[in-house]
Amino acid sequence: MNDSSKTPLILVCNDDGITSPGIRQLIKIMRRIGEVVVVAPDSPQSGMGHAITIGNTLRLDPNTIYGDIKAYECSGTPADCVKLAKHYVLKDRNPDLVVSGINHGSNSSISVLYSGTMSAAIEAAIEGLPAIGFSLCDYSHDAEFDHIEQHVEDIARQVLKSGMPKGVALNVNFPHKQNEPVKGVKICRQAMAKWQEEFQERFDPYGRRYFWMAGNFVNGDRGEDTDEWALANNYISVVPCAFDMTAHYALQGLNNDWEILG
Amino acid sequence: MNDSSKTPLILVCNDDGITSPGIRQLIKIMRRIGEVVVVAPDSPQSGMGHAITIGNTLRLDPNTIYGDIKAYECSGTPADCVKLAKHYVLKDRNPDLVVSGINHGSNSSISVLYSGTMSAAIEAAIEGLPAIGFSLCDYSHDAEFDHIEQHVEDIARQVLKSGMPKGVALNVNFPHKQNEPVKGVKICRQAMAKWQEEFQERFDPYGRRYFWMAGNFVNGDRGEDTDEWALANNYISVVPCAFDMTAHYALQGLNNDWEILG
Repeated sequence: MNDSSKTPLILVCNDDGITSPGIRQLIKIMRRIGEVVVVAPDSPQSGMGHAITIGNTLRLDPNTIYGDIKAYECSGTPADCVKLAKHYVLKDRNPDLVVSGINHGSNSSISVLYSGTMSAAIEAAIEGLPAIGFSLCDYSHDAEFDHIEQHVEDIARQVLKSGMPKGVALNVNFPHKQNEPVKGVKICRQAMAKWQEEFQERFDPYGRRYFWMAGNFVNGDRGEDTDEWALANNYISVVPCAFDMTAHYALQGLNNDWEILG
Repeated sequence: MNDSSKTPLILVCNDDGITSPGIRQLIKIMRRIGEVVVVAPDSPQSGMGHAITIGNTLRLDPNTIYGDIKAYECSGTPADCVKLAKHYVLKDRNPDLVVSGINHGSNSSISVLYSGTMSAAIEAAIEGLPAIGFSLCDYSHDAEFDHIEQHVEDIARQVLKSGMPKGVALNVNFPHKQNEPVKGVKICRQAMAKWQEEFQERFDPYGRRYFWMAGNFVNGDRGEDTDEWALANNYISVVPCAFDMTAHYALQGLNNDWEILG
């Protein structure tokens, strides 16, 4: 819970890079709520998952594109950005909220694992900070954000007001703009869907083989409590994501079945 | 469960790269159990988390360093390797087991999120394949593996025999070589520990600032059912890891607390 009498400090990150329209929108909205500090990648980092830079050096330089807002571009991954923000840029000031995005493209269902947007939020959750990843189900660079602006603000204010469950970051996905307004916000579980890859085989000008990863999203999960269901029905999906990956439901079975324990 | 009358097909991957001593050990052990196919990164990919290559091309080339074993080196991440193995190299043949490692260094506790080794195993689990990531708590290139060789084989055979819980990949960590033999195998939960980063600030020959990420592993989790406890007590830790990141325990609380749902 937050002391509502003081101005909240809000750290903004993303994975599409510091100049993307999505982060610009998010900064604009967060300014209405509190003091904003931006630490974001200097180039697109989509699909980086929870990668960190451990075998190489990191750059962090001030960036003035957002005027009077304190902003830094980082050569690393989204998770690196959050680590550098916490331990170097903000040092002893803990942000009241960490927001990542707004991602150009869905991070619902299994995409959460591949998502740089969500890795920034989860990294913040590991640090004990309330964190939200925002994604819009529209991959285009000139995606429309006006239908979700108020919802982004409302969700951020809700988290500042009611706090965050322990060990959790929120994965918030917005439906792309439709003819009717968004119907509302639903708390969901991650749909058990997956990407069905197809690799396109091509040859370079020197005759050497290379591949493009392509494929389709396949949802075999018919549940109406999933993020996919919510998005398909023009609701905003909110999935609480844990960084404890233990499949607690599987512990007893393994203890029963394995003969090699000792 | 596996038909024990046929030779198992085993896919081997890692994140340290196709020439690392750890994968060489793993290939040697897996050959005793079944037919081995190797698809591994052409360069080290440590700390890559669950990154995938979506904005760039992928290379996949045969590699003959393992003699008669079918092996490919891939320009992408560990998760890319598993995707290419399944959809291109093996096509319609499903491996009976996917193993990743043996990683030079621990992937216990929160490190599972940053681990390329485990991302290969989790990617295989998403594909519905039994998968194990093996890591040794010894970061050195010339780490000793002889004290764990039989255990790696036993664990792989156990999984082939008893199958894998749904939606799970195993995160197996081995203690580094000590004066006494390993005490045994324990099914564990992921310890709630974290890395406490410290960034070393340096300047390059041109006077520009850069950083090295460094830090210490801090375990505030006193539970004796954790992977950290097992490893500190010379046991092998086996954590079942789910790719459903939903914090199911948090759903009801959010539904109760949030005023903006609808």
